[in-house]
Amino acid sequence: MSEIPPAGPPPRVLIVGGGFAGLNAAKGLADAPVSVFLVDRHNYHLFQPLLYQVATAVLSPAEIATPIRHVLRDQQNVRIGLAELNGIDLARKTVSLPRGEIGYDYLILATGATHSYFGQDQWEKLAPGLKTIDDALEIRRRVLLAYEEAEWEEDVESRQAKLTFVVIGGGPTGVEMAGALKEIAARSVPRDFRFIDTTTARVILIEAGRRLLGGMPEALGRQALRDLQDMGVQVRLGCRVTGIRPGEVLVAEERLPAENVIWAAGVRGSPVARTLGVPLDDKGRVLVEADLSVPGHPEVFVIGDLASLIDPPSGQPIPGVAPAAIQMGQYVARIIAGEATAGKGPRPPFRYRDKGAMATIGRNRAVASVGGRNFSGAFAWLLWCAVHIWSLIGFRRRVFVMFSWLWSYLSFTKTARLITGNPQPRVKRPRGVIPTSRDNDAEQDDSPP
Amino acid sequence: MSEIPPAGPPPRVLIVGGGFAGLNAAKGLADAPVSVFLVDRHNYHLFQPLLYQVATAVLSPAEIATPIRHVLRDQQNVRIGLAELNGIDLARKTVSLPRGEIGYDYLILATGATHSYFGQDQWEKLAPGLKTIDDALEIRRRVLLAYEEAEWEEDVESRQAKLTFVVIGGGPTGVEMAGALKEIAARSVPRDFRFIDTTTARVILIEAGRRLLGGMPEALGRQALRDLQDMGVQVRLGCRVTGIRPGEVLVAEERLPAENVIWAAGVRGSPVARTLGVPLDDKGRVLVEADLSVPGHPEVFVIGDLASLIDPPSGQPIPGVAPAAIQMGQYVARIIAGEATAGKGPRPPFRYRDKGAMATIGRNRAVASVGGRNFSGAFAWLLWCAVHIWSLIGFRRRVFVMFSWLWSYLSFTKTARLITGNPQPRVKRPRGVIPTSRDNDAEQDDSPP
Repeated sequence: MSEIPPAGPPPRVLIVGGGFAGLNAAKGLADAPVSVFLVDRHNYHLFQPLLYQVATAVLSPAEIATPIRHVLRDQQNVRIGLAELNGIDLARKTVSLPRGEIGYDYLILATGATHSYFGQDQWEKLAPGLKTIDDALEIRRRVLLAYEEAEWEEDVESRQAKLTFVVIGGGPTGVEMAGALKEIAARSVPRDFRFIDTTTARVILIEAGRRLLGGMPEALGRQALRDLQDMGVQVRLGCRVTGIRPGEVLVAEERLPAENVIWAAGVRGSPVARTLGVPLDDKGRVLVEADLSVPGHPEVFVIGDLASLIDPPSGQPIPGVAPAAIQMGQYVARIIAGEATAGKGPRPPFRYRDKGAMATIGRNRAVASVGGRNFSGAFAWLLWCAVHIWSLIGFRRRVFVMFSWLWSYLSFTKTARLITGNPQPRVKRPRGVIPTSRDNDAEQDDSPP
Repeated sequence: MSEIPPAGPPPRVLIVGGGFAGLNAAKGLADAPVSVFLVDRHNYHLFQPLLYQVATAVLSPAEIATPIRHVLRDQQNVRIGLAELNGIDLARKTVSLPRGEIGYDYLILATGATHSYFGQDQWEKLAPGLKTIDDALEIRRRVLLAYEEAEWEEDVESRQAKLTFVVIGGGPTGVEMAGALKEIAARSVPRDFRFIDTTTARVILIEAGRRLLGGMPEALGRQALRDLQDMGVQVRLGCRVTGIRPGEVLVAEERLPAENVIWAAGVRGSPVARTLGVPLDDKGRVLVEADLSVPGHPEVFVIGDLASLIDPPSGQPIPGVAPAAIQMGQYVARIIAGEATAGKGPRPPFRYRDKGAMATIGRNRAVASVGGRNFSGAFAWLLWCAVHIWSLIGFRRRVFVMFSWLWSYLSFTKTARLITGNPQPRVKRPRGVIPTSRDNDAEQDDSPP
């Protein structure tokens, strides 16, 4: 296999994945005497926390995704490549891509996580998850099509099944999706239809555990439950999905007729982890050392959602959220920059600074835990809006998202209600670096939290 | 086949197609004592004149597409259905859809036009045209991927072919695409790449006729030629494409190595016209009477791009542009409303009011012909911007497009540079009213001009 020329003089730092972790590692190396090569299978960095708003027709993809090249355009020590990852050879210190091999002195693996269907991979087609822009557009298409099909349907039972949305998983994504789906039904589309009453659409949130928002304080989980129930979402706690078939979901012994199912339950490390021959946790994530390196390979770091590490002060696992990924990226950049200038030495351990957590539920409703204090209601909702707008990349995106939200708030509409996407496109993808088929993969998921 | 209940009491008006023509026909019937059923294969009305800006990453789809239901939400005499058209039975006055048949008292056929490859249908996969949002996203994907692949390519010739963009057809769409592609290469992406010099990308515009913008005054065609050449676009007039193969375009005897080809040449009426058994012109459009009805069927109107009619005052064919489609829609609405209230009588002929024509070429460059006067340069460009923003549906879209253009103008960037779209999606389209495969069709092209 041909060798791809290095991005510049050594030490050569290869970053795989341009999500929060990988991108922040690259930025952190801006002034370091290193050559950085950043590889991702998408050409954009995705602001994953707002992806559910693409799936629910509030925002357009370009409002939450930024071309990676654009973000790093002025950082001269970075080369960027769009490619899938074929494999990693830790012994030879090379990464294999369709175009050839790249050697590295440091490897930063930040390929994130993907959905886990707990061994029931056949559920994926019936219950898509929400990790990429294409996922979000597919969910948007299904949600909007459900109303269109119900409008044609004369059979009452069949119509109700088309108007039943089941969200599986009561974490932040599941809570946010369920709330947004109910708002669409109750407020955005009722006047659009003549035959169906969209306010009768059912949104059912199913969670196997005893509470919602497991990663947040218990009081906020209870508040989210009350808020969702207020809005008319049916929440089922302690229920396990035992089957998903076309047109129905099985919950324990019960059969729920539902045409629309969204998966927000399980997460597992991206498949590349299993090819490394290093210890993984039960979710397929790499068990990293205190300096985020792979045991026995101090030159290989795993950061972001793919890393599994217990935070010593709290004794808790570091959560798969954007702030943790950002901090990990910044940390490994500091380590590498230090070794490139001052030479190798003992590394200080990674320290996670918990910035709190928040989830939005609907109009004027959110829950937030910041600095040990809990907030809910309109204040938490405004806080949530402010934090997310502030975190977006670039002035233009901030203005657009702010204006979109304001518009959506005042008009009660969701603007991006477009059913797009040819399942069998009329034109084929050109030959090239990007493979033309993909099933059940996430070699380089660039969407960490 | 089952019968679909009518939208309301007779007369029942069935409109097929929600483009400029069909949508304006529906709106024009708002106060008429009729029941309207509007059927389209998309759930949105597309502002087709700005579609090339989606293909060139300036705008997002939601900025130029509006859900049809939203536009007509307060018009109580309209029912809307999302469906493909299976066929029309003029004798039985029924239209067949996947869900069943709909009877009509008046039929308004506004299914628009599609690409014509002049019998070379195998070219379509290699040279996609620009009629739908999915077309535009596919072209955007190819254009952006071309640079990504060139960045990997070490072979000089192959790299140049990847950086060669051929636009076939010198009408407004071809001119606008060629100008925008050159601006991307010269101004938007140069700083994004480390190995390739994107300013060396070639954009070649091929036109079989002796001039550009055949539908506009000759002086403007010459101005557009000068502007494009100034910008570095290679324009070839009087050249006929004789072949398109992977990686090359044949122009007469010459072989042009080019990986990216965009079709903006031929247009033909949507295929449903050929099933009606009525006289068609050489482009497959229906030769309508002076009142836009089909010969022998006064209850059937064909409007928009699918209609072929000579304008008596000028002796020229009425052009396939948005203003003509809008006027035709308004005209047939007046005819039908009049007959529904005052009874049938002689119909005044349709009169086309030519509002002029315009095309943008690039930054500060456009050509416009308004009221018999020609404009070019910055003034024409500002006029073009104002007219298009004014014509968009809804305050929100106007603000967003204006802000996008302002941003793009000041920053020289194209924001929506996202490579999205799975050619083989991981999740299948659900069963339902929308067929799951489509090749080479345009049964209900909702994008007239």
